[in-house]
Amino acid sequence: VFIVSDGTGITAEALAHSLLTQFEGFAFEQTVIPFVDSLERAHACVDRIRAAGRRDGDRPIVFCTLIDPQVRNVLLMAPALVLDFFAAFVDPLEAELNARSTHAVGRAHGTTETSDYQGRIEAINYTLAHDDGLTNRDLASAEVILVGVSRSGKTPTCLYMAMQFGVKAANYPLIPEDFERRALPGALEPFIDKLYGLTIAPERLARIRAERRPSSKYASIENCRYEVEQAERLMQRHAIRCINSTSRSIEEIAATILQDVQLPRHSY
Amino acid sequence: VFIVSDGTGITAEALAHSLLTQFEGFAFEQTVIPFVDSLERAHACVDRIRAAGRRDGDRPIVFCTLIDPQVRNVLLMAPALVLDFFAAFVDPLEAELNARSTHAVGRAHGTTETSDYQGRIEAINYTLAHDDGLTNRDLASAEVILVGVSRSGKTPTCLYMAMQFGVKAANYPLIPEDFERRALPGALEPFIDKLYGLTIAPERLARIRAERRPSSKYASIENCRYEVEQAERLMQRHAIRCINSTSRSIEEIAATILQDVQLPRHSY
Repeated sequence: VFIVSDGTGITAEALAHSLLTQFEGFAFEQTVIPFVDSLERAHACVDRIRAAGRRDGDRPIVFCTLIDPQVRNVLLMAPALVLDFFAAFVDPLEAELNARSTHAVGRAHGTTETSDYQGRIEAINYTLAHDDGLTNRDLASAEVILVGVSRSGKTPTCLYMAMQFGVKAANYPLIPEDFERRALPGALEPFIDKLYGLTIAPERLARIRAERRPSSKYASIENCRYEVEQAERLMQRHAIRCINSTSRSIEEIAATILQDVQLPRHSY
Repeated sequence: VFIVSDGTGITAEALAHSLLTQFEGFAFEQTVIPFVDSLERAHACVDRIRAAGRRDGDRPIVFCTLIDPQVRNVLLMAPALVLDFFAAFVDPLEAELNARSTHAVGRAHGTTETSDYQGRIEAINYTLAHDDGLTNRDLASAEVILVGVSRSGKTPTCLYMAMQFGVKAANYPLIPEDFERRALPGALEPFIDKLYGLTIAPERLARIRAERRPSSKYASIENCRYEVEQAERLMQRHAIRCINSTSRSIEEIAATILQDVQLPRHSY
């Protein structure tokens, strides 16, 4: 399987991956070839594809997102099943909009001077500065504040929300002291409507913590059960919405939270 | 424009965005509706789409990635131009592979127990721990180490490489002391083959730094010119590959670096 793009190939790769996971029992060998934006590079691609087909005896499958019609036509000559993500949709869109597409390469991830892009970089910086309760300063600027026990998945989820959606996402740990006091960390009280909980199966939490601190009380299943139960109670008492991260990917958790809190979703 | 997915909608949104940027002069109003995985939710979507069309007087455009044929059939009844990213490609793939697709929902971002997914979380943790020269410990585990002046874009690029591609990416600042010594930071010397440089136009650097520390020497154009020049010299002297981040997005920088250093690319 070759994924050929005139840009980064990230979108094409994701869509190809979605499609290929629909076919079980195949071991696809995937090669992404990004930045194919000239006839020369297109011909070089065709050579690689041809060589792979000869080597394996199977006809290669090529997914491509190529905007320039000339470059695309070169790829279409490859001895392979070539599936073009753009070609299938540009025609019906042109008809619907009664407009011609610009055929300009590299627009999808190409703009860095827009306020959207700068907002995204700001969101990443904000999220890094507000990871794990690092500072209480300017929590008011957070669009969402994730709470949960240590290692419940707050940090990767917040970073994903910032990186992918440009959301200023802070996170704050719930720790044994909070459970003893049976109260949220004081710094969070003014922002209760921004809080969103992450919880996790104690068994999985214990495994994750054991990688950091093997044989510690911190990682013991008893302690993990206690912390998770207490954290969930605290969230219930304050009517904080909550998602279980145990078998969900970062993408799924982030998309669910954004949907629940109805934050505007800017994708990059 | 509606983007309807039975999963997170992230892939569909990215592809729709790529297509729509090909049409200039239109102000598309985009709504992503994720997790449409039941007939009930599909009917609710159709209602929203119909209402939007009535309100605006324009026929809505719907991009969808829906695997379940029954759910998809509901969407196809919407009074809209419905473009289905899966339908167009599943048939030719089935024919080529001589196999039926599983029509199982939520496979693309759904797996958290795989070694790939855990490798990704490890990469994120590694990258966070090795941001901005935070520690010299275990630099040997880095797959790539970005170097550059403060605010040249190292941190977001590293986080993106970890998050999107599962790459352990460290980063290390080049600071005035290094320029005076005309030498790389000592901690990096054993890893010269893992280094990759980021550079940036001094004018843009000055603007970025001024947001942090207005009217400082740090942000002055003279100082930015000096630092960038010195950093570029240092990279040249050590034959460190280098990319200019000025007008490139995080995605473009990350994809270029991965291609240059020929790191295997796992996408999520």
